[in-house]
Amino acid sequence: MRFELLKTDGGARLGRLTTPHGVVETPAFMPVGTQGTVKSLTPEDLRQVGAQILLANTYHLFLRPGHRLIAELGGLRRFMAWEGPILTDSGGFQVYSLASLGKVSEEGVRFRSHLDGSEHLLTPELSVEIQQALGADIIHPLDECLAHPVPHAETEASLARTLRWAARSKAAHATGDGRQAMFGIVQGGGYEDLRRRALEGVCALEFDGYAIGGLAVGEPKPLMLDLLEFTGALLPKDRPRYLMGVGTPPDLVEAVARGVDLFDCVLPTRNARNGQLFTGAGVVTIKQSRYAADPTPPEQGCSCYTCRKFSRAYLRHLFIARELLAYRLLSLHNLHFYLALMAEMRTAIAGEAFRAFEARFLARYAVSSDGVSSEDPVDTEA
Amino acid sequence: MRFELLKTDGGARLGRLTTPHGVVETPAFMPVGTQGTVKSLTPEDLRQVGAQILLANTYHLFLRPGHRLIAELGGLRRFMAWEGPILTDSGGFQVYSLASLGKVSEEGVRFRSHLDGSEHLLTPELSVEIQQALGADIIHPLDECLAHPVPHAETEASLARTLRWAARSKAAHATGDGRQAMFGIVQGGGYEDLRRRALEGVCALEFDGYAIGGLAVGEPKPLMLDLLEFTGALLPKDRPRYLMGVGTPPDLVEAVARGVDLFDCVLPTRNARNGQLFTGAGVVTIKQSRYAADPTPPEQGCSCYTCRKFSRAYLRHLFIARELLAYRLLSLHNLHFYLALMAEMRTAIAGEAFRAFEARFLARYAVSSDGVSSEDPVDTEA
Repeated sequence: MRFELLKTDGGARLGRLTTPHGVVETPAFMPVGTQGTVKSLTPEDLRQVGAQILLANTYHLFLRPGHRLIAELGGLRRFMAWEGPILTDSGGFQVYSLASLGKVSEEGVRFRSHLDGSEHLLTPELSVEIQQALGADIIHPLDECLAHPVPHAETEASLARTLRWAARSKAAHATGDGRQAMFGIVQGGGYEDLRRRALEGVCALEFDGYAIGGLAVGEPKPLMLDLLEFTGALLPKDRPRYLMGVGTPPDLVEAVARGVDLFDCVLPTRNARNGQLFTGAGVVTIKQSRYAADPTPPEQGCSCYTCRKFSRAYLRHLFIARELLAYRLLSLHNLHFYLALMAEMRTAIAGEAFRAFEARFLARYAVSSDGVSSEDPVDTEA
Repeated sequence: MRFELLKTDGGARLGRLTTPHGVVETPAFMPVGTQGTVKSLTPEDLRQVGAQILLANTYHLFLRPGHRLIAELGGLRRFMAWEGPILTDSGGFQVYSLASLGKVSEEGVRFRSHLDGSEHLLTPELSVEIQQALGADIIHPLDECLAHPVPHAETEASLARTLRWAARSKAAHATGDGRQAMFGIVQGGGYEDLRRRALEGVCALEFDGYAIGGLAVGEPKPLMLDLLEFTGALLPKDRPRYLMGVGTPPDLVEAVARGVDLFDCVLPTRNARNGQLFTGAGVVTIKQSRYAADPTPPEQGCSCYTCRKFSRAYLRHLFIARELLAYRLLSLHNLHFYLALMAEMRTAIAGEAFRAFEARFLARYAVSSDGVSSEDPVDTEA
């Protein structure tokens, strides 16, 4: 994997990530393909909306259908017929958030599957083994991700273990074929001193890129942005930076302003299945009766398939009738919106106009919004 | 609407139906777009699998979102962005099968909506008004569809009323813009004398085509084929014949052999959502463990998107994980299978080889089948 930093504009960075399976122009957003599919969409749909790289979840694929089966069938890219690059997480976040958590020890994390209650021990070595079997282009070391707030002493102990796991993961990764990159993960909770220690510890291991974990886990937004700014200033400039699991459209813009290159988040697809459309003016909650006879597309001027073909009235009808096509058409639009937003940010950085873009976007986005729901709709994602 | 009978081969007929919104090569199969969408699929998907004409359900669209709203938004074709022809039923069949049925009187059918319990009176005139508002290319008169078996006297009384309703429907239809065709419906239950009387009564009204109703409603298969053969022999040769709501792939082949030109059925899409794939060798029930590591496509040699891109193992994974993409990929394959079967039958008739095709198809289809389930999966269809 190769990363070129092409340009900076204030804190914002324009870059290019070259992986064995394709080039990613950064800043980039990765649609989430939790169980080996971005819910309701085909690989062709994803290309059409401009996806360059996908995220897949190690935890889910380990449990079902199993990494060995996927390896046997030629790896995850072949299994799901996606020809571009894939990034996998370590599985840790889902163990903490979805599984029935058992003992966390130096060895690893014991948990019971959310699917069938079966017991497993996820170690740093097993996480790497799974990610090698899946064949992702970018993989991650097992870490511990804390909610907010957690006391300083507890956060410190957790961080120390995460750093020891990072070293073990790096050693396990060294047994691979050399085609996979590994990003280190910066934890440290809501404390600047621990974030600094995390950074120094992780950077000393010299990863191919750096993920920022443990943000957007319940802390106030200003604290998140402060920590992001602080972390961004200290990370090596020549490596890509990935902010895990974030976020809303304004989050993306504000994080790019602070030097983030890569994002993933379930919001565009999960909220689509909740009937919410993202637009430049905010969120449209399609079930509202004011859209019942609305002949306009979700977003005027949007070039996505959904906006070119269908009215809000039709989408509302599909959503209220619980038609499967609703989830697909809304997911298409939302991913198009997210990916077009990233493209606009890249253009703004290239033209040294990011600050103006940021101000304009944030001012307009705030104007009208039906409100965002993160309630889980049809199924579990990430 | 114009119908040309291009060729016959035994009882099988090759024809061409020209509607205001496109040509339909017959024998043809119509995917069912119950609520203004063929479940999980876009109009582009439908074109891709070879759909020439869709069926939409008057009952569903009357209740939600309402025919007036659809008319206001430019009609059903514009609402759902389907550019080809549409056929609508009268709404009667769903009133009998889905709604809470009230009194059937000379005036019409009282019922309570399956959605919200609201009370409605569907008359022949209202059914035509709804179908005019939807703007279908082919519409139908309100009829009474009986289950099997029903005593002769009761069937006779029902038929007499259906014929009076047919005359009222025809009169209401005469108020339209002349761009919609109307098919008469031949009922008469399981009795040859009543089927003959139905035929004479309906044909006397001179419809643009003839639908055969009340078959595949519980009667034994040989009786269905006998009644079909009998009806086919008596219908005017220069009008299209539509067998309502039928059926399995062998049903289609055997009905084409008896002169049917048009079909609709929810089987390919409903059974897709139940995890069943139709193939030339029978049904593949994808959840079975024998497909867990099967790298082959649903059907070897099939040119549909699903078969070109994905393995049975992947589709099984999606289905077991209840991923939305499963329903879509299986629906795509099944509709492709049905529409390709119709195309093969047209080729066989054109080459005067239909009898051989029929024998070959029926012999192979019987070989291996995982069994067909008609259990309703995710939602209600038709």
